[in-house]
Amino acid sequence: MGMSEAEIIALIREMACEPAPGVSVPIGDDAALFEFAGGSVLLTVDSVYEGVHFTLVDFGYSDVGWKAVAAGVSDIAAMGGEPACVLLSLGFGAAPELADVRSLVAGVLEMASSCNCALIGGDVCHSGAGLALTVTVAGTPPAGGAVLRSGAHPGDVIGVTGELGASGAGLFVLGEKSDELRSRYPGLVEAHLRPRPRVLAGGLLAAAGVTAMEDVSDGLAPDLGHICDESRVGCEVEAALVPMSEEVLGLAAEVGRDPLEWALGGGEDYELLFTAHPGHFDTAVNALALHGIPAARLGTVTGDKRDRAIVTPTGREELRGTPYEHF
Amino acid sequence: MGMSEAEIIALIREMACEPAPGVSVPIGDDAALFEFAGGSVLLTVDSVYEGVHFTLVDFGYSDVGWKAVAAGVSDIAAMGGEPACVLLSLGFGAAPELADVRSLVAGVLEMASSCNCALIGGDVCHSGAGLALTVTVAGTPPAGGAVLRSGAHPGDVIGVTGELGASGAGLFVLGEKSDELRSRYPGLVEAHLRPRPRVLAGGLLAAAGVTAMEDVSDGLAPDLGHICDESRVGCEVEAALVPMSEEVLGLAAEVGRDPLEWALGGGEDYELLFTAHPGHFDTAVNALALHGIPAARLGTVTGDKRDRAIVTPTGREELRGTPYEHF
Repeated sequence: MGMSEAEIIALIREMACEPAPGVSVPIGDDAALFEFAGGSVLLTVDSVYEGVHFTLVDFGYSDVGWKAVAAGVSDIAAMGGEPACVLLSLGFGAAPELADVRSLVAGVLEMASSCNCALIGGDVCHSGAGLALTVTVAGTPPAGGAVLRSGAHPGDVIGVTGELGASGAGLFVLGEKSDELRSRYPGLVEAHLRPRPRVLAGGLLAAAGVTAMEDVSDGLAPDLGHICDESRVGCEVEAALVPMSEEVLGLAAEVGRDPLEWALGGGEDYELLFTAHPGHFDTAVNALALHGIPAARLGTVTGDKRDRAIVTPTGREELRGTPYEHF
Repeated sequence: MGMSEAEIIALIREMACEPAPGVSVPIGDDAALFEFAGGSVLLTVDSVYEGVHFTLVDFGYSDVGWKAVAAGVSDIAAMGGEPACVLLSLGFGAAPELADVRSLVAGVLEMASSCNCALIGGDVCHSGAGLALTVTVAGTPPAGGAVLRSGAHPGDVIGVTGELGASGAGLFVLGEKSDELRSRYPGLVEAHLRPRPRVLAGGLLAAAGVTAMEDVSDGLAPDLGHICDESRVGCEVEAALVPMSEEVLGLAAEVGRDPLEWALGGGEDYELLFTAHPGHFDTAVNALALHGIPAARLGTVTGDKRDRAIVTPTGREELRGTPYEHF
């Protein structure tokens, strides 16, 4: 019986756990923080593989490039940081065509430049299989220090930017292989192929003093679980408060699905999930509103660290998504 | 007809060429240099894929981890920099066994800690194929500024640390699948599986004012070609001066190969190739000797940028290796 992704990460974390000079935020958060002489740098790395994270049937090459960079940028945003530069490692299964490489790199540059990030380096080689991209993003932490997953306290309010479930619903639309369905839900497909990380919101939330933050990459349930694990707290989410778009609700009604499944377990929405002291929550939301960024209250941090609850019309249930398990 | 690795890199470089704030050394050198508020950081990324860069028949898991980190550390050394921290992105083809993951991570940590580097982050996922590792290394540039590939001048002396060809010869030994041969050439196998990047030498050479530097990752011929391309100069190498170990020469004699092929085209020696003003070359070599690091003169930088020459007993020939072409 092989190891799960969570077990592997736990093992690496345990093996690499010796305190090392310069490491302010080690393995276990959205990004690592390293103190260099004269300044500190946030660093994050994410790989995506054809057939695992995307197919070239559903994704154009430029979408693949865009989304790989967006995931890394979102990790920096989730620390309250400002992304600065991107490195790209590209693996091709066979000698690629000029138009495809041009499109891929254009997608990378389009996403990177929308965040004022430069593409500064990387490498290119044969992958032995399909298309593989690894994106490293470096950034600068916010003036008040990076916002970690570990800072939530019992009584804090749980909030989230934007709306959830659109990416998961978009994946469902793509899976139906129906041009007709796809044409009626363009926003969902766009949300899945070209997510927009919340860089500005991350900085505003850090400045507003939120206590913990993470991006919604795995889904609300597992990602909130990470904050609870790292902060040694519990949570109670109110199902009625989970923000979802008209398109998500419309598709769910049309195809007979529970839209909450996409919000709780779909992931890849790249919205920011955060916790704030009750007295600071409105300040944080107002700071976002001034820049036109919506945010919603989802529930409350509780003191029992085994507590992972969602309150629905039928009662109090265990909060669970269907997190993507890699193995 | 698909694109070659060099064509892909040239395209990315062209597309990403807009000068961006903070980018001191962009795509095209061993590592990129980015200026953050308060300091500058060297960044490099390298991916290796099972079946392309290694097999798990020849490599133990710990060797794979060691060598992937060594390649990144060597890129930082080639700028004269000091490696500081490592991020690791791991892709597994199937749920891995505990002992294998433990061994892989131990190899990563062993190499990283030998360079005072901390493992600070990364990600783990399914690769859809074999084992894949992407290593990002961040480091600090030397006090006098990073040493680039582009600084060589006509008349400069070309030098190299250590000896060349051992990694290529080691790959040959492994390919023979003979335990007997392997037991007689342990140094060659070790050189291929567990290369030792020249971090100390890189710093000493930078301090000694060398004009250009690169690590020998592709082979002497292509790597010296990179320095010539970036510096818009030519080169003349003397075949008799190329330093090779007794083991390399012994194996070559035994199996009827030209050992120069391993030195010029084998690659992965991770020695440092450098150019220096004739008046500074001895100073640089003496600085290395004080720390027990051997270095040799290889030849001269010439003014004709089309010139890539090697002088052998039979005459002046074109310097060429058999660089690994990924596609």
